Amino acid sequence: MEESISLQVIARIRSDFTSKFGIPRQSNLVPEQEALIVFEPAYRDENALRGLEGYSHLWLIWGFSEVKQAGWSPMVKPPKLGGNKRMGVFATRSPFRPNPLGLSSVKLLGLEKRPNLGTVLLVSGADLMDGSPIYDIKPYLSFTDSHPEARNGFAADHVDEKLPVEFPPELLARIPEEKRAALLASLALDPRPGYLAGRSDPYGFAYAGKDVRFYVEGGVVKVFDVVEGS
Amino acid sequence: MEESISLQVIARIRSDFTSKFGIPRQSNLVPEQEALIVFEPAYRDENALRGLEGYSHLWLIWGFSEVKQAGWSPMVKPPKLGGNKRMGVFATRSPFRPNPLGLSSVKLLGLEKRPNLGTVLLVSGADLMDGSPIYDIKPYLSFTDSHPEARNGFAADHVDEKLPVEFPPELLARIPEEKRAALLASLALDPRPGYLAGRSDPYGFAYAGKDVRFYVEGGVVKVFDVVEGS
Repeated sequence: MEESISLQVIARIRSDFTSKFGIPRQSNLVPEQEALIVFEPAYRDENALRGLEGYSHLWLIWGFSEVKQAGWSPMVKPPKLGGNKRMGVFATRSPFRPNPLGLSSVKLLGLEKRPNLGTVLLVSGADLMDGSPIYDIKPYLSFTDSHPEARNGFAADHVDEKLPVEFPPELLARIPEEKRAALLASLALDPRPGYLAGRSDPYGFAYAGKDVRFYVEGGVVKVFDVVEGS
Repeated sequence: MEESISLQVIARIRSDFTSKFGIPRQSNLVPEQEALIVFEPAYRDENALRGLEGYSHLWLIWGFSEVKQAGWSPMVKPPKLGGNKRMGVFATRSPFRPNPLGLSSVKLLGLEKRPNLGTVLLVSGADLMDGSPIYDIKPYLSFTDSHPEARNGFAADHVDEKLPVEFPPELLARIPEEKRAALLASLALDPRPGYLAGRSDPYGFAYAGKDVRFYVEGGVVKVFDVVEGS
């Protein structure tokens, strides 16, 4: 019996999240966030997409390429539990798994032909870092994939709460208008690591080519600077 | 940028479906169908399962090991469309995809310690053939994975209909009692390839060590023999 298979990258995501820090921890938490799926040249065949436009949602099976080399451990510390309680890796969506695969449902907004890129998919709700490799795209089938009644284990009590965000207008003006809603929604999710949630140190996260700097104080996310990203 | 990754088999399914023919075409179509997930020795660590018992549903990312060598094609003929209409492979759940990964949600019935196998997962609704390799197990999170409103494209009009099944009692008696409900439910889904749906040739499918022989006539599945499987 075969013991391993090799996966080819079929596409990559292009998103405004250019570093791991700040990315929503699950898909669909920031529905405003749009991203592009660009097929690799070897898979740039619009025949392979025929019929896709009839679906409203897709599954992406993708790679946590940033953590690939770090290996895995049987127990991880989910950020939602404050980062100091350990759970079995298969009871979490942690990237530090034996096979570093991510699974995300996204909304399909449309198919577009782009110069030099072929037909790309415009999606929203993706929690993937810019450049992440995608290994498979499947239609979402509500009659087999949707279980609204599912019991969510320890994640049930920790669905991300949203914090108020203070973003001075003169700083917000440095972000392209069409990208502001997604940035505000991402900040409201408090992107700090869970185990630091009691502290008010400043953080920065890379977004749409900028570095957005903020701290959290009294349960409020306060942006204090927006500078050109590196 | 890396162009491929290698996946390790972390577990295998043990189910009564010992050949590809007859397996329900999606998960959850036959909720009576129970199966075991047995971890490979290198991943047999119950710490990795800590917290899993709180979830009612799981995702399995697994391998279509039987079709691995056949390669992929941009267009496939989904059985639900009668097997003669071609759709893009990414608009289907066909196994003949660039990376032959399957995605199935299953119900978690329980964790059990078994002699020589460690802790196994008892699940229902799995559409995996006996022995299929599993590459990842994740908790199902209803707040991010469930989209009951999703639009199902061309699959919407072809949700599997159920046919009546005639199974003579003296033949049904050859199947262990606890396995009868799942077998009847599988037969009701008309496991014949879609493109043959107009014909009444006899078929056999391997189930729980038996070969169950049937034909379909006048919209009724008629079982005419049950013999020892090879």
